[in-house]
Amino acid sequence: MSKENVVYIGNKPVMNYVLADVIQMNGGTKEVILKARGRAISRAVDVAEIVRNRFISDIELGSIDTCTEEVMSNEGTATNVSAIEIQLYK
Amino acid sequence: MSKENVVYIGNKPVMNYVLADVIQMNGGTKEVILKARGRAISRAVDVAEIVRNRFISDIELGSIDTCTEEVMSNEGTATNVSAIEIQLYK
Repeated sequence: MSKENVVYIGNKPVMNYVLADVIQMNGGTKEVILKARGRAISRAVDVAEIVRNRFISDIELGSIDTCTEEVMSNEGTATNVSAIEIQLYK
Repeated sequence: MSKENVVYIGNKPVMNYVLADVIQMNGGTKEVILKARGRAISRAVDVAEIVRNRFISDIELGSIDTCTEEVMSNEGTATNVSAIEIQLYK
C-alpha cells in the first residue's frame, strides 16, 4: 500500500480530514487508512463515522488497530502515546 | 455477556479505569469490554494499551467497534457522538 492512502489526523477541525478522505475515495482510491495519536484518536473515530454515515454510504469499516508509540520530547525524554489506525475501504 | 464485564470510560484519570479492568481480570473474568464516547475514546485506547503492556501480559486485544450514538442535550436537541467498544480477553 502506498503512503498516499494514509490520512494523518491532527488538531485541525474534523471536517478537514473528512474532506481529505472523501476526495481520496472519490478519486478512485479503494482503501484509506486514518492514523492518529493521543487525543486525536477521538477525532479519527469521528472522521470515520462522519464519512460512513453522511458522505460515502458504500464504504466499509475495516480493521481497527491500536498500538503504543514512543515519542521523544525536546528535552530528550521518551513518552508513550497510544495510536490508532482505522481502515476504510469500498 | 453480563453487564459486569463492561468498564465505562469517562473523564477520570486513566489509572482508575486500568485498575477497574485489572481487578475484573484478576477476579476471573475472561473478557472485559471498554466503552467510551466522545473525547473519552482516546482514554479508552490508553487504558487498553496500558493494561496490555504493563499489567496483564497474556491479555489479547479483541474486536474494536465504533458507532454513532445520539445524545439528547438538556435543551432537547439531539447531537451525534462517536462511541467505541474495545474487547479485551484472556
